[in-house]
Amino acid sequence: MAWSQRVLQLLHRMNSFHAQGSIKCLCKPFYVGGQRVGSVPPGVLPHLGRYPGVFLVDEGLSRVELSSGLGGYSERSEALDVVLREWKEEKLFDCLEGWRDEKYEVMGRSCDPPLMNMERAATSLFGVKRYGVHLNGFVRRSDGQMSMWIGRRALSKPTYPGMLDNMAAGGLAAGLGIKEALVKECAEEACVPERLAARAQPAGTVSYCYEDGTGIFAECQFVYDLEVPTDFTPTVGDGEVQEFYLWPLQQVRDAIVDSDFKPNCALVVLDFMIRHGFIQPDTERYYHQFVEGLHTTL
Amino acid sequence: MAWSQRVLQLLHRMNSFHAQGSIKCLCKPFYVGGQRVGSVPPGVLPHLGRYPGVFLVDEGLSRVELSSGLGGYSERSEALDVVLREWKEEKLFDCLEGWRDEKYEVMGRSCDPPLMNMERAATSLFGVKRYGVHLNGFVRRSDGQMSMWIGRRALSKPTYPGMLDNMAAGGLAAGLGIKEALVKECAEEACVPERLAARAQPAGTVSYCYEDGTGIFAECQFVYDLEVPTDFTPTVGDGEVQEFYLWPLQQVRDAIVDSDFKPNCALVVLDFMIRHGFIQPDTERYYHQFVEGLHTTL
Repeated sequence: MAWSQRVLQLLHRMNSFHAQGSIKCLCKPFYVGGQRVGSVPPGVLPHLGRYPGVFLVDEGLSRVELSSGLGGYSERSEALDVVLREWKEEKLFDCLEGWRDEKYEVMGRSCDPPLMNMERAATSLFGVKRYGVHLNGFVRRSDGQMSMWIGRRALSKPTYPGMLDNMAAGGLAAGLGIKEALVKECAEEACVPERLAARAQPAGTVSYCYEDGTGIFAECQFVYDLEVPTDFTPTVGDGEVQEFYLWPLQQVRDAIVDSDFKPNCALVVLDFMIRHGFIQPDTERYYHQFVEGLHTTL
Repeated sequence: MAWSQRVLQLLHRMNSFHAQGSIKCLCKPFYVGGQRVGSVPPGVLPHLGRYPGVFLVDEGLSRVELSSGLGGYSERSEALDVVLREWKEEKLFDCLEGWRDEKYEVMGRSCDPPLMNMERAATSLFGVKRYGVHLNGFVRRSDGQMSMWIGRRALSKPTYPGMLDNMAAGGLAAGLGIKEALVKECAEEACVPERLAARAQPAGTVSYCYEDGTGIFAECQFVYDLEVPTDFTPTVGDGEVQEFYLWPLQQVRDAIVDSDFKPNCALVVLDFMIRHGFIQPDTERYYHQFVEGLHTTL
């Protein structure tokens, strides 16, 4: 199958929650503090009744609400944490096997201060939006040709072991700034000195929403570009990455459709290639569908 | 109201077709050659019955189809053209007062060769996607600060007279390449020599969908960036623009929320500012909502 078609397929897979036949119409909207923050998948709904002090499910089962008896940020976060740890003990959901002890903020649409936090591994059980930050590290030769630094994930990573990744990337844990998180990941994963990482420029977001057997992954990745000097080489830091490659853009382009790439990282480099004119609308028939698929409204 | 909130409002207005209370749920899907190409608004539906040889409306009024008796591209285009000219004579729809004698291609989702063409002024009556091309012309000072060339539309323009515009922009008429259309608009509107215009780099699309009283505007603008030399000044060409300004980005940013800007051009410069890091996610709380609102799936 042609490259373009395979990219479209990847974008469809990464937005499977909005496809026909998904669990979307069986999910119930999830509210915290009066604000819609996610969707509860059908496999989670039957377990909420055990916690009447935490979840409020209306009679028509039209929506799930975190009990308004839970006052604020801390009280909500702690009450849900107790439930999630119980589910983890009971081995109720596979995703909780990947418990990280890393808290993600739960935000409403108004982008006011976060409403609560939630263990990272549990966010898919409530369809809560997750945020991350990804870096396109690239080199520009004197003739204008670009190459990108691509990492290969360690075999010990719990998710997507051994697959291709961006030069640096990570989830946005509670309380950390976006650029701050990026600089931290750059140092930890690729030994990029802070002075160099600080030069990274924000260039938008990539957003998508997919489902797997039990959960919903509504993710928004903040994207940064960093032009690195030709004499700089990222090196393995905390061991999350096993190796770095400097690849010409054409090679990265081909790899996007290989099953070798961690899917969301493939989207981040696709977005890079569109923004930098390496993919052109006169020669790529699905150009505008690529752009739309990379920026799903969450 | 704060700048960020006003930008959100602009994005909501430009995507009003997908907002609650829009005519969306009263529209019927429009098919040509078995492919979905648009939506017919409720105000247009009652007039289709007069043309049984052109439109096929099923009994349940669940969809409108261009008659399969119309063989190919030319036959379809001509049959619809006869209908539209009749409606124009009858002064049935205001939008047809702006008849341009300019044909737009009607495309299916597969991006195969176009299925037919349609008078530009009539596309909103069938919710058919329209494509255009916009240029961000900018200057980079030696200290890295950027300014943008902004045009002011002539008072004689039928749409948005006297409002701010990008350095060059235009609709994509049938049969023209995208870069080709851009170079042509650059020459006509701003007297940009072909050699300079050819340096413009594609950088994505901006897409949105709004409704007015009778029609649906589903539009995708191909976006190009062109860094122009500091000693170049665009000059008025065919009279569609009355004047050009070179504004620091901060001034352009403020103007985005003025009612002075042609709305879709304001979106194009907003996208530019995000891609070039002038708007940053750590300081703009609605950053990812901006990116999502600029790239609606059509």
